Amino acid sequence: MLQLGQRAKAAARQLALASTGAKDEALRTAADLLVRKAPEILAANEIDVERSQDGGASATVIDRLRLNAAKIEAMAAGLIKVAALPDPVGELVDGWTRPNGLRIERVRVPLGVVAIVYENRPNVTSDAAGLCLKSGNAAFLRGSSGAIESNKAIAAALREGIAKTGLPEDAVVLVEDTSHESAVEFMQLRECIDCLIPRGGPSLIKAVLEHATVPYVIDGDGNCHVYVDEAADLDMALAIVVNAKTQRPSVCNAAESLVVHESVAARFLPRAVDALTGVELVGDARSRAIASSIGPADPLDYGTEFLDLKMSVAVVSSLTGAIEHVNRHGTGHTEAIVTGDLEAAERFTQEVDAAVVVVNASTRFTDGEEFGFGAEIGISTQKLHARGPMGLRELTTVKYVIHGEGQVRQ
Amino acid sequence: MLQLGQRAKAAARQLALASTGAKDEALRTAADLLVRKAPEILAANEIDVERSQDGGASATVIDRLRLNAAKIEAMAAGLIKVAALPDPVGELVDGWTRPNGLRIERVRVPLGVVAIVYENRPNVTSDAAGLCLKSGNAAFLRGSSGAIESNKAIAAALREGIAKTGLPEDAVVLVEDTSHESAVEFMQLRECIDCLIPRGGPSLIKAVLEHATVPYVIDGDGNCHVYVDEAADLDMALAIVVNAKTQRPSVCNAAESLVVHESVAARFLPRAVDALTGVELVGDARSRAIASSIGPADPLDYGTEFLDLKMSVAVVSSLTGAIEHVNRHGTGHTEAIVTGDLEAAERFTQEVDAAVVVVNASTRFTDGEEFGFGAEIGISTQKLHARGPMGLRELTTVKYVIHGEGQVRQ
Repeated sequence: MLQLGQRAKAAARQLALASTGAKDEALRTAADLLVRKAPEILAANEIDVERSQDGGASATVIDRLRLNAAKIEAMAAGLIKVAALPDPVGELVDGWTRPNGLRIERVRVPLGVVAIVYENRPNVTSDAAGLCLKSGNAAFLRGSSGAIESNKAIAAALREGIAKTGLPEDAVVLVEDTSHESAVEFMQLRECIDCLIPRGGPSLIKAVLEHATVPYVIDGDGNCHVYVDEAADLDMALAIVVNAKTQRPSVCNAAESLVVHESVAARFLPRAVDALTGVELVGDARSRAIASSIGPADPLDYGTEFLDLKMSVAVVSSLTGAIEHVNRHGTGHTEAIVTGDLEAAERFTQEVDAAVVVVNASTRFTDGEEFGFGAEIGISTQKLHARGPMGLRELTTVKYVIHGEGQVRQ
Repeated sequence: MLQLGQRAKAAARQLALASTGAKDEALRTAADLLVRKAPEILAANEIDVERSQDGGASATVIDRLRLNAAKIEAMAAGLIKVAALPDPVGELVDGWTRPNGLRIERVRVPLGVVAIVYENRPNVTSDAAGLCLKSGNAAFLRGSSGAIESNKAIAAALREGIAKTGLPEDAVVLVEDTSHESAVEFMQLRECIDCLIPRGGPSLIKAVLEHATVPYVIDGDGNCHVYVDEAADLDMALAIVVNAKTQRPSVCNAAESLVVHESVAARFLPRAVDALTGVELVGDARSRAIASSIGPADPLDYGTEFLDLKMSVAVVSSLTGAIEHVNRHGTGHTEAIVTGDLEAAERFTQEVDAAVVVVNASTRFTDGEEFGFGAEIGISTQKLHARGPMGLRELTTVKYVIHGEGQVRQ
């Protein structure tokens, strides 16, 4: 493991100095190799799929795991798209001169070795490697055992493509040992890993919290709320709630909870129930008194990310009550208010503690693409380093460069 | 512990909304209370000092622990100075409008609850609390058992001062249970702690790496180098090496290693040996062939932060060799080159992987005050969130605020 890490680290030193042009050419060549090696990749994937089927994996797991020509082309297209994005490396973030004449510059540089630990989605191998390469980082990848053959084939194609253009093939290093012990060793390789990003469900996050000693960024749960204020345009509120809940319920920026001000609840909730046909609604006594089709909510429901066509409902007596409810049950991902009242909008955006706070739009916009970043490696729900959608910039750090003329400290 | 954390969290929500004026008034009032409560604080400190003396603590430990009127006045002056610094909270970091009309703003906000775990320096209680308060964070403090009475007295004075101005006294929450179990529980309080900053030696850092599940920023070792290039002004190099090594050898930005290009080694090393009288020099065979008073270096010496009047010496054949040496042995803190050659300066600053890279000045300038930040909570040697000196800005995060007119995602 240490040897793999050191290979990634050596490659990272070279990648940090690579020109944007060289990195873009490597990405395009890697994309080309992915498509050309599609038969090998699909054959490897077939081994993984068969093994998973034999092991009794669910249809959802198999669906995530299974590749086809279109999926490989999408991976290649992803790399080409990343090549077209602006390079964050080398940006002069700020600079100033001190009274003693020292000139201090803060310059954007790659993190170094970015480690990704992920589950049964082989496309992460290509997506993560592409974002790391563009931002001048080596990608040190540790996928799951279930996708190991696919990951090996994809990594081999990427490495061959990168090497063809003269950049180090160790820009992508895949850990082939998928034992539990190797995962723990991976998360503790402080000598080599500058940032670990887990891509996966709660059990993976739990393992990272428990074992990791390397710096990491958590891509956490989204228990997102839409609060319909007393000053809301109810037509707008209805469209936003329906979109936030139903447009893609399985993702982290989908809404899980509807909070309604008591003064509009009697007018809004019956319309919401109609519009959310097919969504299981569970609510408190006040919401159920208005709309009897809302089932009783278990207290735990307000803290649950359903990721499904299910939504909790609460009626609150005030904006303050809404903010308290959201801060108590939210996970710091995305929280929305629908209101026409300026003061309510300002209080909500200031007092709600979340990565993204939205006024009069769907929670579904918390996304690197929708933010204009061109791509994303995840959505951070922690407050250190990155918060919200993480694009190429979030895969960098800064370095201070000081120029003097012989200054010494008194 | 959870209850303490929840008190800090509740206070943090109020502090995040406090005006700069209110925070500054609280800082000045707390400073006033510290001075007025000096008798109580000194009496409490005397208990700590006596217990440490009875326990056989070293003179250095006692010296760090012992307070006097001047030290308390310095703590108060520190709070007043922080009150005069600009408030980082509320800065509009950037903002843009998407094609669909969504207006996205990135706003600087407090982290929330900043936890500090520290050793036997009671002044950290006041210094950390002041920086946290100014940046809108609650300070959740866990000092060591050896300074507990001093810390309790200081925290009580700060809390009383803060409460007098109407801000929550739980802006400063001190953990009074100093057992090992409580330290571990503290480092795992993910529900309440947004950022943990350890202030102390290698054993504390090790405990954080081993036990912490909350996000943290490591204030690590500084194995700093000065590289004297073949194109160096040797008089300048001499002044910088002497300053970097001897001006204050016990701190992390002091130089621990001198690296000299072979083409100037014969001229430079004898002068350096003379100028570094009183410093124990240990070097490689090439340096010892030039200056026989240099002792033999153990290979481990190149990786050691001496924090004392001791320095390792190495002669290298090229700039590339110097960069490799620095990247192999450095800890990512501060690395300096002395050169008159533009290309050498550019290669060194680009290729050396450290928080701060210095051209023609002493390593001792890596410091929040020297950078113009007005104060510092530590120096980060990791790459996530903060790198280099951490001032008030590094105690903040960002929040995305999105304004729409009913946009939903297609």
